[in-house]
Amino acid sequence: RDKLVTGVQTCALPILLMGAILVFAMHGGFAFLELGTVRRRSQVNALVKILSDFGISTIVYFFIGYHIAYGISFFGDVQQLTGSDQGFAMVRFFFLLTFAAAVPAIISGGIAERARFVPQLMATAFLVGLVYPFYEGIVWNGNYGIQAWFTQQFGAPFHDFAGSVVVHAVGGWMALIAVWLLGPRRGRYGRDGSIHPMPPSNIPFLALGSWILIIGWFGFNVMSAQQLQAVQGLVALNSLMALVGGMLAALALGKGDPGF
Amino acid sequence: RDKLVTGVQTCALPILLMGAILVFAMHGGFAFLELGTVRRRSQVNALVKILSDFGISTIVYFFIGYHIAYGISFFGDVQQLTGSDQGFAMVRFFFLLTFAAAVPAIISGGIAERARFVPQLMATAFLVGLVYPFYEGIVWNGNYGIQAWFTQQFGAPFHDFAGSVVVHAVGGWMALIAVWLLGPRRGRYGRDGSIHPMPPSNIPFLALGSWILIIGWFGFNVMSAQQLQAVQGLVALNSLMALVGGMLAALALGKGDPGF
Amino acid sequence: RDKLVTGVQTCALPILLMGAILVFAMHGGFAFLELGTVRRRSQVNALVKILSDFGISTIVYFFIGYHIAYGISFFGDVQQLTGSDQGFAMVRFFFLLTFAAAVPAIISGGIAERARFVPQLMATAFLVGLVYPFYEGIVWNGNYGIQAWFTQQFGAPFHDFAGSVVVHAVGGWMALIAVWLLGPRRGRYGRDGSIHPMPPSNIPFLALGSWILIIGWFGFNVMSAQQLQAVQGLVALNSLMALVGGMLAALALGKGDPGF
Repeated sequence: RDKLVTGVQTCALPILLMGAILVFAMHGGFAFLELGTVRRRSQVNALVKILSDFGISTIVYFFIGYHIAYGISFFGDVQQLTGSDQGFAMVRFFFLLTFAAAVPAIISGGIAERARFVPQLMATAFLVGLVYPFYEGIVWNGNYGIQAWFTQQFGAPFHDFAGSVVVHAVGGWMALIAVWLLGPRRGRYGRDGSIHPMPPSNIPFLALGSWILIIGWFGFNVMSAQQLQAVQGLVALNSLMALVGGMLAALALGKGDPGF
Repeated sequence: RDKLVTGVQTCALPILLMGAILVFAMHGGFAFLELGTVRRRSQVNALVKILSDFGISTIVYFFIGYHIAYGISFFGDVQQLTGSDQGFAMVRFFFLLTFAAAVPAIISGGIAERARFVPQLMATAFLVGLVYPFYEGIVWNGNYGIQAWFTQQFGAPFHDFAGSVVVHAVGGWMALIAVWLLGPRRGRYGRDGSIHPMPPSNIPFLALGSWILIIGWFGFNVMSAQQLQAVQGLVALNSLMALVGGMLAALALGKGDPGF
Repeated sequence: RDKLVTGVQTCALPILLMGAILVFAMHGGFAFLELGTVRRRSQVNALVKILSDFGISTIVYFFIGYHIAYGISFFGDVQQLTGSDQGFAMVRFFFLLTFAAAVPAIISGGIAERARFVPQLMATAFLVGLVYPFYEGIVWNGNYGIQAWFTQQFGAPFHDFAGSVVVHAVGGWMALIAVWLLGPRRGRYGRDGSIHPMPPSNIPFLALGSWILIIGWFGFNVMSAQQLQAVQGLVALNSLMALVGGMLAALALGKGDPGF
């Protein structure tokens, strides 16, 4: 019986890793989506910024954020960290990091061509190291007793599957504030209020980025279960139908888009 | 023992999902292959058409086609659909959808720059909703007793592994008819019968598309077994040797190609 | 108990296959990295060369190299080759081939725009068919008793995980010799020793290639265990931290790079 559980666990690690790899790949998607959308002269800047954001996010989440959210630190003995389960905990860190690093990537798209490089990296360090893990820990690790209070008041904890609030809403709220503070791109509006068009510089790269994001999404949503026994085909099907719905709605609404 | 089977099944769902994700990714491959092959002005059109085809295919296959092929409808109770196996049936739908949606993608490449947008989408809806599932059900679900008749007459049913006839030949036949009906691209031939060259507009994107298709192919062929116990390494090896053979044959035959 | 082992093995094959697919995908990464780095007129040449290298590598490794390294030939009865484990041996060949084929890809980047097409393919055939398997067999299969001698002399065999020496150092050494023999690109230096800049022709493609390589790297390193029971989360985490370290170091050192 013990060996059986081992058998299943043995599969669990590489399968969660595949999920982590898929979500990791999404960061290339964010990069190409932004690269294709901005003006030509900002392409390389967008690319470097998104990848640097991922690098910074990894460092601060590893040393600070993960400890804030889950109380786990990586300063201990590696033997203890790898334990008897082949280091499942480390793959779990990798998986959750790819979520955390999505937050600055979401913001980055919102403020493309509007922020200076070093200040944006510093904001990323702050958000992924301190702000995001604060919310993440509350919702997914029961920190500060807030979920317990929800359960007591309403009969159930706040349920967030696959980061719809923890990752996407939190990232979006931050992006909204950032957009507010930074204002429009220089030269976007004339003195008389006229709009100067800034069309996407490269639609194929924009599409490549979106496509990578769509593919990675299945890793993001389905593997959020984090346990083989909790993986649900319904999550895959809902993700599929949602993306197709969005695709067809955008098709209907986007008739006048350039290049089509 | 029951738990053991569960153990294996628990792995089966995410592994089949990985296969579905790989074949799903191929639709981006079809898109970039077509985008890189057509003239520059048709690039975005090719991209949008392939992705819209996928969207339409999903809707008609979900509501009509899958029921024609396998008698399964998704209007029932979700509890019953997810059942005791974590919703394996839904991942199976996703996997088979990615096959069905390959049919219009195959046709699309054949009639690139030759069809209007809305009529092509309507043809996609018709083919993926009604025509393809008709053949699919005959071969893979034993519909209309045709496989039984084959077995009775010839001692064995018609064997199609990984859709070589059901997907690829059916798609190719339809594409042949479509090419026949639509004729050559406007401006392809001069009045005196001279050929006006229309070289690929972007060979790197063409190559990117091909490469995505090649990668996804392993998901297409190997995971066609649909059961962990039936997955065969020989299928992976044959897919590999076949692609390498095609690659080297194209290299030998394509010496005069542009840009080389 | 027997069935249990089967259960785990049944997962092992598709999971190792996923690893092989990830490393296989890296060859597209090598191609786009080189394509984006060379001058515009050499883009298609770089692309075709890398993919042809993969094709040639597969053929010579299948017929010659794999036999030199592991004494396994594919001329036998397929029933015996597939055996009772669903052809795990063939997926293992696929996985190890993707390693072998990395050697000419590493060299290719080093001598981009400096070698003629057919001689380079011939060198690839020689290196992947004969030279690389010689080292591979010594280190990973204990050929010629060299590992036994190491163990006897030093108390442990030479340990190479994930090909750091067998693949990467061997490839790098060969590339160094090739660079030495071929010299700089024609026109790189003026008669007076002045440098003629040859900037990357397409940074987004260069980045796309790098990104594909980074993603595939997790398959390369983690699946090198080749057995589910030996897969370690620590390998994934170390790969992640190493890439992030490299990324941030390059960011700090590359401030003056073009296009940024």
